[in-house]
Parts: sequence; C-alpha cells; structure tokens
Amino acid sequence: MKALVVERKGELALREIDIPLTVGPEDVKIAVHTVGICASDLHYYLHGGIGSYRLEMPMVLGHEASGVVVETGSKVVNLRIGDRVCMEPGVPNLSSRASKLGRYNVDPDVVFWATPPVHGAFTPFVVHPAAFTYRLPQSVSFAEGAMVEPFAIGMQAATRAQIVPGDIAAVIGSGPIGIMTALAALAGGCSRVYISDLSSEKLNVAGRYAGIHPVNVADEPFASVISRETDGWGADIVFEASGNARAFKNLFDLVRPGGVAVIVGLPAEAVAFDVHAAVCKEVRIETVMRYANVFDRALSLFASGKVDLKPLITGTYRFADSVQAFERAASANPTDVKLQIRVSEGIPTGRAALFH
Amino acid sequence: MKALVVERKGELALREIDIPLTVGPEDVKIAVHTVGICASDLHYYLHGGIGSYRLEMPMVLGHEASGVVVETGSKVVNLRIGDRVCMEPGVPNLSSRASKLGRYNVDPDVVFWATPPVHGAFTPFVVHPAAFTYRLPQSVSFAEGAMVEPFAIGMQAATRAQIVPGDIAAVIGSGPIGIMTALAALAGGCSRVYISDLSSEKLNVAGRYAGIHPVNVADEPFASVISRETDGWGADIVFEASGNARAFKNLFDLVRPGGVAVIVGLPAEAVAFDVHAAVCKEVRIETVMRYANVFDRALSLFASGKVDLKPLITGTYRFADSVQAFERAASANPTDVKLQIRVSEGIPTGRAALFH
Amino acid sequence: MKALVVERKGELALREIDIPLTVGPEDVKIAVHTVGICASDLHYYLHGGIGSYRLEMPMVLGHEASGVVVETGSKVVNLRIGDRVCMEPGVPNLSSRASKLGRYNVDPDVVFWATPPVHGAFTPFVVHPAAFTYRLPQSVSFAEGAMVEPFAIGMQAATRAQIVPGDIAAVIGSGPIGIMTALAALAGGCSRVYISDLSSEKLNVAGRYAGIHPVNVADEPFASVISRETDGWGADIVFEASGNARAFKNLFDLVRPGGVAVIVGLPAEAVAFDVHAAVCKEVRIETVMRYANVFDRALSLFASGKVDLKPLITGTYRFADSVQAFERAASANPTDVKLQIRVSEGIPTGRAALFH
Amino acid sequence: MKALVVERKGELALREIDIPLTVGPEDVKIAVHTVGICASDLHYYLHGGIGSYRLEMPMVLGHEASGVVVETGSKVVNLRIGDRVCMEPGVPNLSSRASKLGRYNVDPDVVFWATPPVHGAFTPFVVHPAAFTYRLPQSVSFAEGAMVEPFAIGMQAATRAQIVPGDIAAVIGSGPIGIMTALAALAGGCSRVYISDLSSEKLNVAGRYAGIHPVNVADEPFASVISRETDGWGADIVFEASGNARAFKNLFDLVRPGGVAVIVGLPAEAVAFDVHAAVCKEVRIETVMRYANVFDRALSLFASGKVDLKPLITGTYRFADSVQAFERAASANPTDVKLQIRVSEGIPTGRAALFH
Repeated sequence: MKALVVERKGELALREIDIPLTVGPEDVKIAVHTVGICASDLHYYLHGGIGSYRLEMPMVLGHEASGVVVETGSKVVNLRIGDRVCMEPGVPNLSSRASKLGRYNVDPDVVFWATPPVHGAFTPFVVHPAAFTYRLPQSVSFAEGAMVEPFAIGMQAATRAQIVPGDIAAVIGSGPIGIMTALAALAGGCSRVYISDLSSEKLNVAGRYAGIHPVNVADEPFASVISRETDGWGADIVFEASGNARAFKNLFDLVRPGGVAVIVGLPAEAVAFDVHAAVCKEVRIETVMRYANVFDRALSLFASGKVDLKPLITGTYRFADSVQAFERAASANPTDVKLQIRVSEGIPTGRAALFH
Repeated sequence: MKALVVERKGELALREIDIPLTVGPEDVKIAVHTVGICASDLHYYLHGGIGSYRLEMPMVLGHEASGVVVETGSKVVNLRIGDRVCMEPGVPNLSSRASKLGRYNVDPDVVFWATPPVHGAFTPFVVHPAAFTYRLPQSVSFAEGAMVEPFAIGMQAATRAQIVPGDIAAVIGSGPIGIMTALAALAGGCSRVYISDLSSEKLNVAGRYAGIHPVNVADEPFASVISRETDGWGADIVFEASGNARAFKNLFDLVRPGGVAVIVGLPAEAVAFDVHAAVCKEVRIETVMRYANVFDRALSLFASGKVDLKPLITGTYRFADSVQAFERAASANPTDVKLQIRVSEGIPTGRAALFH
Repeated sequence: MKALVVERKGELALREIDIPLTVGPEDVKIAVHTVGICASDLHYYLHGGIGSYRLEMPMVLGHEASGVVVETGSKVVNLRIGDRVCMEPGVPNLSSRASKLGRYNVDPDVVFWATPPVHGAFTPFVVHPAAFTYRLPQSVSFAEGAMVEPFAIGMQAATRAQIVPGDIAAVIGSGPIGIMTALAALAGGCSRVYISDLSSEKLNVAGRYAGIHPVNVADEPFASVISRETDGWGADIVFEASGNARAFKNLFDLVRPGGVAVIVGLPAEAVAFDVHAAVCKEVRIETVMRYANVFDRALSLFASGKVDLKPLITGTYRFADSVQAFERAASANPTDVKLQIRVSEGIPTGRAALFH
Repeated sequence: MKALVVERKGELALREIDIPLTVGPEDVKIAVHTVGICASDLHYYLHGGIGSYRLEMPMVLGHEASGVVVETGSKVVNLRIGDRVCMEPGVPNLSSRASKLGRYNVDPDVVFWATPPVHGAFTPFVVHPAAFTYRLPQSVSFAEGAMVEPFAIGMQAATRAQIVPGDIAAVIGSGPIGIMTALAALAGGCSRVYISDLSSEKLNVAGRYAGIHPVNVADEPFASVISRETDGWGADIVFEASGNARAFKNLFDLVRPGGVAVIVGLPAEAVAFDVHAAVCKEVRIETVMRYANVFDRALSLFASGKVDLKPLITGTYRFADSVQAFERAASANPTDVKLQIRVSEGIPTGRAALFH
C-alpha cells in the first residue's frame, strides 16, 4: 500500500509500506478520501519530533481524514459499507478510569494517528474503531469531513469554556487554531468574538466571518480594545490560541471579574502566570487536551450551516503531489489556513465523483 | 399623566392617572418610547387576574418597554440623560439571600411591573433603578429594545439548559415563547432546533428562521421526527413551551439518555410526570422563572445580528390607539407574534424621529 | 455450581445450575464472599417481575456482592489473584454514545446482574469485567464491600445534586435508600440532613447517625419542620427517596428558592407534578438511574471512616440458609435495613477467616 | 471610642479614635465581642501595607469579628437587638454587575474592613449592613463566630473546587489557610485530605483531625505520596495554600487526569506555570478571591459539629492586652494557629458571661 511517510527529520516520501489492515469485530475499514495537513505533520517532517515524541522509525503522517466505509467488523451496528465518514484519530482504552468518566481524551493510553510510533492516514486504507468513526451528514463534503478534526480543538475549547448564551469572547492569535476556536465559540453561543494578531493577512481571514472582529495589536493593545468594547467590564471568556509565552503576560487584563481563560495554544516552555491578577477577578482557567465527544456536534454544526469552514481550505492537492503540498505548507504563507490532499485511491471513481 | 389602565376585568381605558415619579439616588427617569403587549397584559384585561394575582384596583399595564433616560439619580454612574434604554421590569431586594446568590429572579420580594398592585409602563414616564436599566447598542432600535423582555425568557431557558456547543434541541409549542426559546437556543449554541405545533401558521413564522425546523404534530408525532433526525438517540435538550398539560405525557420520549428537559410553559394545574421515563434516561429537569442576568446578553445578540426579532413585530400602534391594539391581540390571530404600542409622548420629536 | 435461584414467582431454591464461567481477556473470575439481599431480589421472588422486566426462566438472584479474585484475564492490569474486591453489577457497552460521555449508567444496552434474563451473584463464582471490579481497601470488610452497591445509589443521588459545601438537605423516606442517601449527602458535603418517615423504628435507625435529624411526619408536616429549621428559607436540596406518589404533592414546599429536588425513589405510576410550585422557585430537578463512577468514591469514604454502614447490616446468614434469609426479608421488619448472605464456598477457609 | 490602631508601619496603639456610627435603614450596630488576628493585620502593622494597599493614615485593624446586635436600622427584618452575630467584612455595591451575578466578592467596589483607608473591628462598636451580618446558631460561641471569616476562605476554595462526593484532595501548605482549606474540603465532601509542609509542628496541628493526613515533604516528595496513595492516579483536587512560588513547579504532578487545581495562596510575584503539564491532564484551575455566600454555610457546619475550629484558637487576650497579642503573633510560633482578642466592652457583663 502506498503512503506518505516521514522517513526521518527533513525527509518525506510517497512510497509503498506494509501496514496490517485486520478488521476486528468492532472496527471498520475505510477507503481514505481526503486528509488535511496539520502543523504537527509538518513539525514531524521539519523537526523530527514534538516535545517528548521523537521519530525513531519511518511513520505515515496524517490524522485529519475522511473517507468511505468499505468493510465492517462483525459487531458493528452504527455504520454500513458505503457510508461517508470522518475519523477521530485518538483511540483510548475505553475501560480506563478516564474513559469511564467521559474524559477519554486524557486517558494516558490513548493511541493517536501520526504520533510516533503510530502510523497515520495519508494512505488509501485505514482500519479504525467504529466508535470513533462518524457518518457525514449528506450536505457535508469529504473536504469538510477532513476539517472536523482541526475544528474539534476549537469545539473542545468552546465546550470547556461553558459559554453562557450571549457571552463576549476574545481570542488571542488568528492562526488556524485561533480561527477554529473563534468559530466554535461563535456557533457555541457567543454573541461576538474579538480576535487579535500582528498579521493583517491572518486577521483578514478571520474577519471575513460575521461576528468575528479582528484586532491588530500592532495598532492598539488588545486589552484597550476589549475594555472599550465592553464598557470597561472585560470579555466573559478569553481563549489563548497563540501558544506564545508573551501572551500570558497581560492575559487577565482581558477577562471580566468572574470570567474564564481557556488555554488552547501550547507554549514550548513554562510561562509567567500572574496569580495576583487572576485571583483579583477570581478567574477560572481551563486547559484543552485535544477533544472528547465533539465530533458529532461539529458535524451537526457543519450540516446546519452554522459553521462553514470551506473558505479555510486554501489549497487541495492530488495524492501524487503530496510532497509538494508539504513544501507549500512549509512556506508558511500567512493567507493559507488549511491545505488538503485527496488520497481517494481506494474509492471507486463513480462514488468519489459524487462528492467534493 | 396619561396611561393605559385596566380598570377591572374586561375594561381598559387610556386615561389620566396620578403616579408619583420620585427619582431616588440610584434611579433613572425614563421617557417611554415603545411597549409590547404581553399575553399577561391581555390576561389581566380579559380575565382580571392570573393565578393568585387578582386585580383589586385599576392598574397600568405593560412591562416590555424601551425609552430614553431623561433624569438620573445622584449616585447613577452607568447611565446618562439621552441614553436609549430598555428596562428589566422585575426589581428584587438586592440585599436578599436569593439576590446575593445571583438568583434575584426567585427573590420572593421581587416587585414586577403590571403585576397587581404594581403599575406598568404603558405611560409616558417611568422611574426605575439604574441597575435594571440597560443601554441599547446603537444598532438596536426602540422596537427591538422592547423585545428584550419577551426574548429574555427564551434566554433564561437557554441559559439554564447549559447548552453544549452543537447540541440538538426540540421545542414544544410554536407560540411567541416557543419561538423566542428556539431563537435563544440557536444563538446560544445549538446546531439546530425542531419546533412543534398544530398550527401551520405559527410553524410558518418559526420556520422562516434558518436552523429552526417546524414539525406539525398533526402529521406525525414529534417523538418520531426527533428519533429519525437523531439516529434514534433523542434531542440533547427539550424545551416545553406550550404550557399544555398533555405535552408532559410523552415528554421524555424526546430526550436522549442523559439529556435535559426545560420547562418554560406554565400549565394551569398539576401535570402527570412520568418519573420512570425520566429516571431511565437520568434526565435533568430545569424550570424557568422569568430571568436574571440576561438583558445585557440579549442586547449583545441583537447588536451582533445573531438574533433578529424584527420579523416577529407584526403590528405597531399609536398610543392613542392602545385599546384597538389590545382588541387585535384579543383576537388571537395565529400569524401575530408581537404587537407593540409607541407611547413616545415624553420624547422630544426630533430624537424620536431618529430611531424606529 | 450451586446457586440461589428464583424458579418462578414465589419459588426460591438453592440448587445446582450450569453457568459458563469463561474468563475473557479483560475479565476476572471472583470467588463470591458476601451478597446482600436487595428489595429487587425480593420483588422478583415475591412478584415474578419489576415493571417491564418479567421472569421468563429461572434466574440466579443477587447483585450486591464482594469476593476474592481467583483468576485474571490476559489483559487485566489493575487486579491480581487474591485481591479482595466488590463488583459493580451493571456492565455497559463501553463503545456506546452514553458510555463515551461518561454516563454509562444510561446506556440502553447495560447488562445488569439479577435482572431478567441475566443471572446474579448468589453463587460461589462469577466472571466480571475488571473495569467494573474494585479492590477493597484493607480496612473495608467483605460485608462492607457488599454494601457498596446499595450505597452507590445514595452516592449517585448526592453526586447529581451538586452539593455546595454546607448545604442543608431533606430526605423523604427513611427506608434503606433514604438512609443511604442521607449518609451520602452528609459525607458528600451537607452540614445536616433531615429525614422523614411515618415509622419511628425506621427513623430511629437513621437518627443514630450524627448529623441526621429524624422527623416523624405523623407529628408535624415535614415542610413546617424544614421551614422552622431554615428560618423560612427551605432546604438547599430535597431527596425524594420514598417512591411514594403522595410525596410529590408538596415536594417543592421543602425546597429553597433556587434549590434542587433529586428523585431517588421510583413510584409505580405517573405522579402529579406541581409545575407552578417548581417554577416559582426555579427548582432544578435531578433524576437518578442507578450510578456511574461512584464505586471507588464510596470505598474511599468507607476506608476513611466518614461513612460507616456496619450498623445497617442487621442480619447475616450462611449460604445454606439463603431461603430463610429471604423469608425474613419478606417479613419486612422495620428495624431491618440490610440482610446479607455469606456465600464464601469458593474461598479457601484460611483467607475467608481473616475478614468478616 | 477606644480602638486598636496601626498608626504607621511598626506602631500600634490602643487609643481613643472618633469614628461615626450612624445606623442606616439597612444597617445594624454591633457591640463587638471577639476579633481574631489575621496575617494581614500583622502585615499592616509590621510592613505598613500589602501589595498596592499602603497605610496613609492611622487605621483600626481587625476583620474577623463576632458580637451582639445593639441597634437595628428601620428596614432590617432578619436581625433583632440581642442577636449574637458574626460579620462578613467585605461590603460590595449590591447593584453592581458582579453582585447581580452572585459574584459580589469580585465587585471592584468592595469596601473591606481594615484595608486602607477603611477602619476595622478592633473597637467596641461597629455599624454594618444587616445583609452581611449573620446570626450565630445557639451552639456556636463568640470565639467560633470570629473564626468564620478565616474559615470562609477555605469554604470558598472548597466551593469553587466543585467537589464530587468522595474526592481525594491534596493541600500544599499546613499554615492556617491550608488547615482551614483541608477542613472545608473534608466537610465539603472529600473522603480524605493529604496536607504537606516542611514544619512538623504545623503538620501536627493538621494531623490531629481525623481524615487529614500530614505529609512532611522533607521526608518524601508530595507527588510520590499522592501517587502511592491513589494507585498512581493522582488527587482529584489539589489546593495550593502555601503561597510559595516553588509550589507551582510540580503542581500538576499531584493532579489526576481531568482533575482540578485550586489556587488559594497568593505568591508575591508571577510564578512559572507549566502549561504542558496542565494541558496533558486537561486540568481545570480555579482561583479564590476572598469568599461569597459562604458565611451561612460555614456556620451550619460549625453548628452541626462537622467542623470544629476550637482547637485552632491557641491564645485569647483581653482588649487591654491587644498590643501584647500582636507581639506574640509577630513571633510566628509554628504551633500558633489563631490568636483572638476579646473586645467585649460594649456588651453588658451578664450577657457576655453567658457565652465564651
């Protein structure tokens, strides 16, 4: 089977690889249609690892995937052959203490696609548990199906925030995660969202959505804008989505008394936490570890049209051009949000033609 | 001062009345611009009382009001003369145990406009605490400002539901309260809302909004529709907004395991509660008593355009035609959602002309 | 293997039965030590069914069990042979939507001991998933281990109530479930608990615990007592644990504004629900379906001595005397709370002698 | 009127001072009985300020007070002359946005006793709003009444933690705040609490309470103990009560996946926050700003005997010996938890003699 493999730091190849595809009783086999390129895929390619995860042998990349069910295990009841689906790439031990509590994303034994040594989804077929495979509503395309995973992080952030209908949010950082978070917050109950960045290109992408107000912090501190726009009260919820350690410096200036700060971005090292500023307003701080129980909700928002991520797909490549796609991703074009690759090889042409 | 007075059951008059208008240090005086007719106003007129509240002397009606601040008390800092505002009609004792907990709506000592023996707002001037008077954002008209109060009930329902982003909701009853609730649920984080009724006219009003799916239960039981549309799982949240005792019969058939039922409608007598059905799914049941802390959030949703209630204002009358407006309300036209009366007499013409 | 079998309505036998005991990779095999008699066991014996569950073939009773692990499946890591344990008798499909949400108790596919047609634990050996088998802390005896299951219902009630530290609770009904609920509420954060009943014997059992205040409603209405003891404010939380339809009549008189009512008891038919009374105080109503994620917490409370259920074990029988034990249970002695049977046959004598 | 006045940094005097005692319609006048010495009182005396609060003129110290109502304002209904009471020392603007939300402790306009320039309670009479004055249950002495305020911080920490019944907690720091927090967590639903310190004297004070397990971190890292005692899972809740910046270094090692960290201590400067460690477990972090709505709950726990703070009162002084009491407090004896001063001068002897 062909696959997009990172051989080692800096070396990417579309080549044959032998991966067992045994379908267990609760599994489905999926012909992969579309897979998005995530910053983490790029990171493994460019740097050979992320934090404590290091590449020690060649690994198939990709964890933002959609496709078509081509085989179902004997006990699978929720899916049928031919179903168009997207996949939640982290599979926990469902018997674990964390999973029983409904927090399966923090199960220490989660197995996650394209996280060493686990192979990912840039390949024509994958086998996956039916419980983590979700049928796409009719109006949701494969391309959108492959956007569920990155959007799921925004959904998890919006969920942990416990938005009260009509809340005002501020999002720090207008990269892909920031925009996804802003859209999830807006669809998830906020009345309006302010988003900050230094790049006007990135802010322009976000600002095209009604309800998202871009703020270029080169012009004015974010806290001043938030204060003015909220009569000095502050934002009900602040999402830190830049992953920049400096963003923590005045983080709590943005939050209203009794408000919430949600940490979505992941700074490389420990950051300075102004306990006094947080305590004065008795701020609650939530952290976000991937996601749990949000794929079906994300799909429901796509299907209803409340969330439209199609404008964020800024480039689509054929499987054969995968390496090229990664080179473009590596160029970090600020107007690019999401590049996708159509794998599709395992899908009969007629069917694939129907959906795009 | 002229006012719209219900003299006794069945008798309404626009006549002079003497109401003291002393402005305390934390109060503002407001020139009333627009007041909506609520079902409760109509009820006092037609039946002389609601539940244990009985008319014992003439009372000014009206509690859905907007206007302009014309005088401010000595300690008022959040409002200025000329501010366009709407008013929260229930004023609690802020020192009470319930108020200190943030649940001021259940303070037994709440004083509420147009609830015997308290006079309401169908009159050119009112005095109100600044803490319960809210500035209208620039893009929100007086007519919309007078819609905040009825919408606030939907907001309270959506708030108590604790919507998780992307939840699917079902609303029983497509009257004004049902529609307000559906809109608040949608803006408050739901991906889509199904609403049921027997009247196709009422359903048509609701169905004009994207994301609201009307279901005529003359054609098919609501539970069948919800089951089909949710793969047999049920709605995450069911709002009972019909106030019809029969709606409780199969209420929990609509709810998913672990879901929520929110009681918004108020049936006249005790209803049959199928404990077994609720327990099997471990349903949480929330009740809604008016509202607390939602006016600012409602205004924020109006201002952002996420909620547009203008199509629900189906008739506007001059103050002089108030009795006529009530006669039309009494005719219970199923396509009428909200009738409003422009009081405006206390507002200088130039200013009033600016906003409509 | 010998087992206590209900053959049909009214007929109980301690006799040989053939039950497969295959240990799957995630299972353990347990030598049963002690099993409590639950009201539901008695109900199947006396009436042949409960609600829609009907006996259609002989069934082994018992679901309140403790024992010793005698074999572990190949993938079991949390338990070892020789571990003293108690078992959570309901096993869900862990891949289900409800389970993934952490609400596995409402998974429609739960398989529950001694619920037709599933055999229970009054037998020397059972096989059970390791994920639903909990090690007993050293200070917790087998007899107490077999009390975890009935106490778990109280724990679930206390958990769903979302007790705020120092809350005052009222419990309606001083039967086993009422007492368990009162103890869980007290250990779970309440400052004091009032419990009501008509039987002074039952109230005496509850009243022996510090912090539980018995109220005989033959002497004075419960609502009067609660009102007096809370300066007219009401209880923060009311637990309905009588299962008596009449208890719902004035249920909300007991609750404070903004308080909670938790339905623990299960009335046979629909009850009259005074919506108006609930709405006035904006009461939240929680229902309780068995339990989820509470066994470890219950054991922790037993081990710390915060909860001592030993006084509630009012009779212990040898396995050979099982039928006698059920006859006593059938006599409904008001001073009996829990009768237990020591099965123990599968446990080597030396080991069994160590614990009692 | 005599009062204990800090004249400036380092200078304390018991001397006459002229403070107006006008009783407003919603106020009560209280003859002060007992006042505890708080670390902040000591700080103003020794250092002349705390953070941004600086002494700029002489100020009466004391905010942990109990006494007897001697006069009531015209609108006061919840209190009567002769009532034994304790007082919540922070008075918010009840009309503020924060107060309306039930979070009056984060109202920026809170006026707090013995915080410059506001005078405190080491004086025979004070005037206070009735809404922040709480009647002592009969079994609660004046000395205990004056302990409600310091205990309230522990209560707030336990409340914000949202304890699930049976949770296991870890408290960092066995000073007065740590012990109060441990006791509140235990009474508030935890099954057991581990508390750490380097001082065996301080740990001995905490360890005298059943359910509190002292851990001397000179012997073994706290995280090792917690891991061992929780089968490697971690504590459900960790309370940081040392205020020591170093405690943040490995804070999240103590917490279980999906657990909570509550920041009670207030480090002087920004601390290093290991975002990665928090995110991996998706830890929720709560901060604690004084307290709101906990005085009545604290009193209820004292009255029921669930919390007994009497052993923590390690010294009681006459008003005339106030300066001596402060000198002892300044000596920072590790076995001293709380020193109190009996002001009592305004209370008729007979009455004062009744309670101690």
